[in-house]
Amino acid sequence: MSHFQGLAADIGGTNTRLALVENGKVREETIARFRNADFDTPEDAIDSYLTDTGRPACGAAVIAIAAPIDGTAIQMTNHPWTFRADCIGKVLGGANVTFLNDFEALAYSLDRIDPARLKPLHQPLQQLRTNATRLVVGAGTGFNAAALFRTARGDHVGIGECGHSTLPVETDAELRLWSYLALNRGRASMERALSGNGLREIFEWFCLEQGKPIETRTPAEIAGLAVSGSDAVCEAAARQWVTFLGRVVGDLALTFMSLGGIVLTGGVTRSLARYLAEPEFLTAFRSKGRQSELVSGIPVHLLDDDFAALAGCASRM
Amino acid sequence: MSHFQGLAADIGGTNTRLALVENGKVREETIARFRNADFDTPEDAIDSYLTDTGRPACGAAVIAIAAPIDGTAIQMTNHPWTFRADCIGKVLGGANVTFLNDFEALAYSLDRIDPARLKPLHQPLQQLRTNATRLVVGAGTGFNAAALFRTARGDHVGIGECGHSTLPVETDAELRLWSYLALNRGRASMERALSGNGLREIFEWFCLEQGKPIETRTPAEIAGLAVSGSDAVCEAAARQWVTFLGRVVGDLALTFMSLGGIVLTGGVTRSLARYLAEPEFLTAFRSKGRQSELVSGIPVHLLDDDFAALAGCASRM
Repeated sequence: MSHFQGLAADIGGTNTRLALVENGKVREETIARFRNADFDTPEDAIDSYLTDTGRPACGAAVIAIAAPIDGTAIQMTNHPWTFRADCIGKVLGGANVTFLNDFEALAYSLDRIDPARLKPLHQPLQQLRTNATRLVVGAGTGFNAAALFRTARGDHVGIGECGHSTLPVETDAELRLWSYLALNRGRASMERALSGNGLREIFEWFCLEQGKPIETRTPAEIAGLAVSGSDAVCEAAARQWVTFLGRVVGDLALTFMSLGGIVLTGGVTRSLARYLAEPEFLTAFRSKGRQSELVSGIPVHLLDDDFAALAGCASRM
Repeated sequence: MSHFQGLAADIGGTNTRLALVENGKVREETIARFRNADFDTPEDAIDSYLTDTGRPACGAAVIAIAAPIDGTAIQMTNHPWTFRADCIGKVLGGANVTFLNDFEALAYSLDRIDPARLKPLHQPLQQLRTNATRLVVGAGTGFNAAALFRTARGDHVGIGECGHSTLPVETDAELRLWSYLALNRGRASMERALSGNGLREIFEWFCLEQGKPIETRTPAEIAGLAVSGSDAVCEAAARQWVTFLGRVVGDLALTFMSLGGIVLTGGVTRSLARYLAEPEFLTAFRSKGRQSELVSGIPVHLLDDDFAALAGCASRM
């Protein structure tokens, strides 16, 4: 295998992660994370990283973006940055630039994840089917999922924008919450609940429901107070959030028939890890009527690695 | 190409369709349809067909079934028939038997459909992207969908059991209906509404809502009365049914990012064709918040061909 250096980038709605790649592998010691808000453009963030790392020669760049990938000009859904392959290539001294969806990169990383980074949430007794479809689902600034299909001709990643499909509700209280999330938007998508802003708005709705003033809190504060058990409203919001997550993950498992397992990721998911071990999550995941047994046979893990998508980028270089 | 004869079969929850295949193509004049209820086992139905067609030599059989396909023994979800490759092979004189999911077969048929059989429901002005993912969605005895992904290494069909995911509701009335469909079942899946029995139960719920006695009607009768405009409750049920269908099809378009177009099929869908041209269907399909423009760019057609899956079976022979 020839010596080869390239750039891998994973650009989410809040943070950008960067690393250098050699022989198709991420060089761990080069991994860096920036807040998008600290830069005007993605070119500025990449240029700053190249300066920090001694301006290495990069023959290629694979850039994962939280956006639908369609051609060589990309517009993010949850952030004002736009991307053009030629502009980024110029910053990299003429490197060939490929764009991937961030969940596409995560799906391609599934075979490269260090097992120690996978925390089991649900482990059925039956043998794992290694050739079955696998699913990665994540909630952070936005919500999305990707399926890794095993085919006779190699792997294929099925990627869409499921976070924009309708948030499923089952009770009167949840429908009132749905209507709150839908205010001025016409409807509530999955992402309106299953994201950082979603956690905040669910918290606000619980304040209103309980006749309390709405406190100004960030999603991270709400998750922190819920996990420490020091605020009942934050705890209620966390329990509702993982209920939605379990229901949606179970639905996606059926939609993609991901019998090979489900990996959960995303900053908000990780911040509420304690609540994924509470009964609400698995109950909602498995409550699928005649298909409950089928869904119950699917293992679910939480990925404790914010840089996994970089490995997926490296695999496509 | 060598002369080759095989059997294609499409076994739904109510009807079985059969045809002989020559050189990878269905021989139109051999197409037949049986009601499953007229036979004890699928072997009986196939044996009867072989007798009717003069017991042709079949070197192979590809059988599409409305069931999750997992191995060589299949259990249908909405019908008591079970399938074993060796038992069916014996009826066929030792032919090699392959099982496909019925929606997998439909997805493989998409490139072979006679365009005259595709009735446009929504035709955006923009050019169709021929290399983009296509989606086939159908409601009959059950509900399901499959995506045809174009990959650098050929086509791949993504198939699951999305009909068992949660039915999405958006209003108080719809949640009351959801609860009616969920009675004694714990929850209401998409299929509990988007099927023949679903149309019947939606009709029953409208009877109850309007304080009328529940009349005993078959799904076909309800669709017929709705289409002829001769029963207001049947019309209300049809409008609600296509509202759910539009919402779910729009969600699936986002989930699979099927920018290459959507093909609707299934007996119940076809029986309510007139209502797919009413505003409820397209309004629900396109009401996707920030993604409305994206979804509006996707063409939607109704497939007027109950035998399309047979062509998909033939393509895999």
